[in-house]
Amino acid sequence: MINDLAAREDGPVRVSGWVEKVRDQRHVQFVVLRDESGAVQLVNGGVLREPDPENPRSDILVPRTRTISELTHGTFVTVGGELQHNERVKLGGVEIQIDEISVVTAALPDNPVADDSGIDVRLDWRFLDLRRPEQNLVFRIQTTFLHALRQVWVDRGLIEIQTPKLMASASESRAELFEVEYFEGKAFLAQSPQFFKQMAQAAGFGGIFEVGPAFRADPSFTSRHATEFTSIDMEISWVDSHVDVMDLHEELMVAGISAVEEKHGEEIQKLFGVELAVPSRPFPRIPLAEAKEIVKAEGYEIPRADADMDPEGERRIAAHVKQKYGYDFVFLTDYAASIRPFYHMRHEGDASLTNSYDLIYHGVEISTGAQREHRIEVLEAQAVEKGMDPAELGFYLDFFRYGVPPHGGFGMGLNRVLMLMLGQSSIRETTYLFRGPNRLLP
Amino acid sequence: MINDLAAREDGPVRVSGWVEKVRDQRHVQFVVLRDESGAVQLVNGGVLREPDPENPRSDILVPRTRTISELTHGTFVTVGGELQHNERVKLGGVEIQIDEISVVTAALPDNPVADDSGIDVRLDWRFLDLRRPEQNLVFRIQTTFLHALRQVWVDRGLIEIQTPKLMASASESRAELFEVEYFEGKAFLAQSPQFFKQMAQAAGFGGIFEVGPAFRADPSFTSRHATEFTSIDMEISWVDSHVDVMDLHEELMVAGISAVEEKHGEEIQKLFGVELAVPSRPFPRIPLAEAKEIVKAEGYEIPRADADMDPEGERRIAAHVKQKYGYDFVFLTDYAASIRPFYHMRHEGDASLTNSYDLIYHGVEISTGAQREHRIEVLEAQAVEKGMDPAELGFYLDFFRYGVPPHGGFGMGLNRVLMLMLGQSSIRETTYLFRGPNRLLP
Repeated sequence: MINDLAAREDGPVRVSGWVEKVRDQRHVQFVVLRDESGAVQLVNGGVLREPDPENPRSDILVPRTRTISELTHGTFVTVGGELQHNERVKLGGVEIQIDEISVVTAALPDNPVADDSGIDVRLDWRFLDLRRPEQNLVFRIQTTFLHALRQVWVDRGLIEIQTPKLMASASESRAELFEVEYFEGKAFLAQSPQFFKQMAQAAGFGGIFEVGPAFRADPSFTSRHATEFTSIDMEISWVDSHVDVMDLHEELMVAGISAVEEKHGEEIQKLFGVELAVPSRPFPRIPLAEAKEIVKAEGYEIPRADADMDPEGERRIAAHVKQKYGYDFVFLTDYAASIRPFYHMRHEGDASLTNSYDLIYHGVEISTGAQREHRIEVLEAQAVEKGMDPAELGFYLDFFRYGVPPHGGFGMGLNRVLMLMLGQSSIRETTYLFRGPNRLLP
Repeated sequence: MINDLAAREDGPVRVSGWVEKVRDQRHVQFVVLRDESGAVQLVNGGVLREPDPENPRSDILVPRTRTISELTHGTFVTVGGELQHNERVKLGGVEIQIDEISVVTAALPDNPVADDSGIDVRLDWRFLDLRRPEQNLVFRIQTTFLHALRQVWVDRGLIEIQTPKLMASASESRAELFEVEYFEGKAFLAQSPQFFKQMAQAAGFGGIFEVGPAFRADPSFTSRHATEFTSIDMEISWVDSHVDVMDLHEELMVAGISAVEEKHGEEIQKLFGVELAVPSRPFPRIPLAEAKEIVKAEGYEIPRADADMDPEGERRIAAHVKQKYGYDFVFLTDYAASIRPFYHMRHEGDASLTNSYDLIYHGVEISTGAQREHRIEVLEAQAVEKGMDPAELGFYLDFFRYGVPPHGGFGMGLNRVLMLMLGQSSIRETTYLFRGPNRLLP
C-alpha cells in the first residue's frame, strides 16, 4: 500500500494504483500514482524518446518513456522501482525511481468528470467521482463509524438481525410505498424495519440492531431525501421510557465519533476542513414545546399548522443549543401524539404527548426514537385513531397478544449522519450510489 | 439478566422475562422464567388460595397466588424476590423466592404453536418460535459470526459499502428478477451486489465488503432457496487469481467459526448436539473436473447435461473429502465457462475454464467466488457470447473503460452457512423471517 512506503527503507518496491497526474518534461517524467491509501510520486529519469544505438538500454528506455507519455488519467498501472526518501518531495517525502511500468487497464483519454462538474455529472460517473480522496475518506469513515457502533452493541449482548425488505403491507405510510410484482400477487418494500424489530421484542431477543436499506417512494428532491437509504436501527427491551433509549443512543454516537476522530481526525481536518468534536454526555434534551418557545422568543414563528417543527426551526434551536451549551447535538423530546406514528407510547396521564424524541445534529434531524406502546388494547386503539386498518396490521398486532416487554428504539439515517459530520451539503455526497425519483443509474 | 444470577450472592433481586412453565401445586407454586440469556426457577412458598383472616399477610398472598395460577405461557412478568443458591435446583443451581410478581403484558392462553407444530405453523408464529432457546441461539451465533468477519475486514483496511438494491436492470439473470413500480417507470431488485462491488474496484477502493439483502424471484420451494436472503459479499483488488480470494475467504471462515466456537460452543453442543470444529487452513481444493471423476469412480454418474455438478454430487465429493481429509469444507475450482456468468475471468490459454470456485460446507454450496474479467474488450465479448445485451449493461461496462485493477471476490449466503453449521434441515430455521413464493407474512 502506498501509505506504507514512508515507513519503509530505501530499496526495491512494487506498487499498483491509478494515474492521477503525469508531468512529461523533456528530460524527466513524473507520475502521481494513487491507491486507496494515498498517493506517491514516480520518477522516470531515463527519458529516451527515440531509439539510440549508442545507448545499450535503448530497447528498455524508449518503450518506457512512451508508455508514460501515453498514460491517461485513471489508468491502472503496476510499477517496480527503487524507493528513495527525499525531503524535498512534498508528497509524503518519498519517490520511486521507475525500473519498469506496466499498464493493467488503460483509461479512455477524456475524463467525463471535470473539476468543476456538477453533482449530476459526478453521480453519472460515480466510480470516477469516488476516486477523489475526500470521497474515499467518506467510506472509510463510514466503515469506522459502523464498526464502532456494532462493537458497543456486541459488547452489550445485543443481537444482530436482518429483517425482510419484502412485506405484505405498509410499515409506515401508504403514501410512500414501493410496490413489487410478487409472483401472482404484490409485495411492498419495507419503509423501515419497525414492525420486525418490535417482533424481536416479543420474541424475547432483548436488544437487537440492524444496519440495512430502507425504501421510501418519496418524490421530493431535497438534499436530505432519497428513495433508498441506509437505516441504522436498534430496539431494546425493558425500558422505563424513551430516556433509556436516548442514553444508549448517545453512547453510540460518542463511540462512533470518537473512533472516527481517532482514526481519521487529521485527514478530515485536511480534506474537509472540519475539526471533529467528540461530544460529552449527556447531550442537551429539550421538550419540543419548550424548543418552540425558544425559537419563538428569538423571533422565529414556525409556519406550520400542525404541532411539528420545521427544518428552519430545527436549525434555529440547534444554533441556540450550540451557542448556549456548545453542543452539535440536541434531543428534542415529547412530540405531540398528533404528529407521531400510532406505535409511539403516550405520556401516562397526557395522551396528547408521546415518549419520543428526534435527534438533531448540526441543525438537521438524523433520527427518531421512542418508547413503543406494548399494551395491545392501547396500541389497537391508537392505530384506529390514526386511520390505520387493524385487519392489515393483524400480523403486527399479534406480536402483542402473547406477552411482550416494555421496549423502545430508534432509526437513524447513516447517510445524513455522515453528511452532517463532514459538513457536506447533500446526502448524495455521502451515499455510495444515490437513488432518487430520477436516478437509478449507475 | 438471568444468566448473571448464578454468580451473584444470595439476596434481593429483580428479574424480568416471560413465563415458560408453571407448576401450580397445592402448597407451592413454581414458575420457570426465561429471558434472552437463560431461564430461572421462581418459587412461591406462600400459597394462599382463599382469604384467611387469621393470616396477617392474606391480602398479599392471595392475589399473588392467583396471579401465578393464572399465568399463561409467554406472559411477560417482572419479579422481585430473594435469590437463593440451591444445588438441588437443576436449572442453574439457583432459585428465587417470590416477594412480588407483576404482569407486564399477558399472553393469550392458547399458544398457537405446539411442540409438534410443523415448520409452516412455526413460521406463521415466528415470534413465538423464536422464543425457543435454540432459535435464540441461532441469532446470537449470527451476531458473533458476522462481527468476527467484519473484524477481519476492518483489520485489513477493507471498506464497508451499502450498494443500492434498486437497479435499472438485471445484475444476474432476467429470469429471477423482481420488478418494482418506480414512479412513472420500472426498477428491479438487486439479485446480488455484483456490479456495484466491482464498481468499488474501478473507484480504487481496494477491498470492500457488504452484508445485505439480495432478492431472487425464484419459484422453487427447496430447503436452500428463498426469495430474499442475506448475502455476505467481499471484493478485493490486485488479485493474481481466484486463489487469493479463496485464501482470504478461508481466513474469514476460520475467524467466524472460531469466534462462534469460543463464545457458543458449549451451548451449541447442548442445544443442537453439534460439536463445532474449527478447521485448519488451507481447506482442500479440488478442480471441478477432478471432483467429478472422483464421484464417478465412487459409482455416481452426475445426471446433468451441462458441465455442472448436481447437489447429490456435491454431497458425495464432500463426503469423500470428509473421509479422506477430515474437512467439512471443500473448494471446488475451475468451473467451466459455459456454466459461469460472463464476468468470471477465464483461464489464460483455455477459455473453456474460469478462475472461479464454489465453497462447499457439509455437502452444500454456500458461496461462489471468482477472479473477475477486468479487460473491457474481453468482458464485452463474453457478455455478448452469453446473450447479454451490451446496451443494457452499458453503465457496468463503463466501469472498465477508465482503468480498473485486477480483482476478485465472493458472495456467500449467510442463512445457508448457519443452517449447515448447526445441522439444520432448512434455511427457514436460520432466517429471521423467511420469504418464499408463498410467504410474505409476518
